[in-house]
Amino acid sequence: MNPAVVLLSGGIDSSTCVAIAKQQGFAVYAMTFRYGQRHGVELRAAKKVADALGVGELKTVDIDLRTFGGSSLTSDTGVPRNRSLDRDEIPNTYVPARNTIFLSFALGWAEVLGCRDIFIGVNAIDYSGYPDCRPEFISAFEAVANLATKAAVTGSRMKIHAPLINLTKAQTIRLGAGLGLDYGLTHSCYDPDGEGRACGACDSCVIRRRAFTEAGITDPTVYV
Amino acid sequence: MNPAVVLLSGGIDSSTCVAIAKQQGFAVYAMTFRYGQRHGVELRAAKKVADALGVGELKTVDIDLRTFGGSSLTSDTGVPRNRSLDRDEIPNTYVPARNTIFLSFALGWAEVLGCRDIFIGVNAIDYSGYPDCRPEFISAFEAVANLATKAAVTGSRMKIHAPLINLTKAQTIRLGAGLGLDYGLTHSCYDPDGEGRACGACDSCVIRRRAFTEAGITDPTVYV
Repeated sequence: MNPAVVLLSGGIDSSTCVAIAKQQGFAVYAMTFRYGQRHGVELRAAKKVADALGVGELKTVDIDLRTFGGSSLTSDTGVPRNRSLDRDEIPNTYVPARNTIFLSFALGWAEVLGCRDIFIGVNAIDYSGYPDCRPEFISAFEAVANLATKAAVTGSRMKIHAPLINLTKAQTIRLGAGLGLDYGLTHSCYDPDGEGRACGACDSCVIRRRAFTEAGITDPTVYV
Repeated sequence: MNPAVVLLSGGIDSSTCVAIAKQQGFAVYAMTFRYGQRHGVELRAAKKVADALGVGELKTVDIDLRTFGGSSLTSDTGVPRNRSLDRDEIPNTYVPARNTIFLSFALGWAEVLGCRDIFIGVNAIDYSGYPDCRPEFISAFEAVANLATKAAVTGSRMKIHAPLINLTKAQTIRLGAGLGLDYGLTHSCYDPDGEGRACGACDSCVIRRRAFTEAGITDPTVYV
């Protein structure tokens, strides 16, 4: 089995990516980040998903994105609730350069593993308007990956897989459910309570709830 | 003064970049990394250079690239000495994805600072054959920078400056010396002794020594 590095946050998209990579026959090396986010619930979710799906290795990388801040997810600034998602603006939950940083670490690990495939669960349909979730960003990063590494001189090619990029969140959920993924293990809320229960009102919860309804699948999430 | 983020390792190239950015009228925000490298001498050199050149802020970012290894600079594998630099191979001092990771963090900080300019002291002439030191890599990363961030929607442009990319190391030294940079503050050796003295024989020392000779400037380095 060829190895693939899969970025895994423990949310719907990245967890589905693990299921897809497994289904495509890859040996999955999952990478998650303790980056100074507001809570550790998603790290526990990533562990549960990795265990349930039989990931070969789950590597947790410590970086502190509070070092430059600029996001409500890495500070005590409030996370917006019940925000209109139709507005064409980048919300304060955007973390500057986060996906670029995550993909860079995945690239380093992939190179060491001798692995040419990296999966990232970005989605440009049901999302919060983050610039680093769009297909043109993924293509540009793939170009970097092929120039930054030994692939540039050996002629092998690195591929950044973003299999969910053009799916609605409901389509993603139907896809993952079909692959046997238990979404009760996943976590989406930006600002859960002390017991890890989802707030139900942040962008991420709103998108998640709506998606389960659209998918016609019962939402297993425990909300406050 | 417009702000610029400058990647600063404390070596010849990055230190010269700080001097160039200052000379071009930028307010310099320097970023350095404690990334699990073999020694802390370069971090002290970065601090000395930042102080000497009057940098506005020097931010040290902690990341641990030993997490995936793959380099003699982040492990106990020996650093090659007296290697032929004419050979067209990537030596084991190459750190997978290092410049991609460094630029990603610089990008995040730049975005938070409202800064459109990032400097990196890569050099594709007198170098160790690392793929992420070539102009095509820098161009590709600049494309990522413009797609990954709010610049993608606001229409402002991020620029990755690599002012040394086509200079020989000797030309770089003459340039920096002309700008008043004291190269005695800088550090290049991959594997200094316990007192921080340069080995004189690793790729980095060999390139440095040769460059001072070519530049006709006395090498202030203390060698073992």
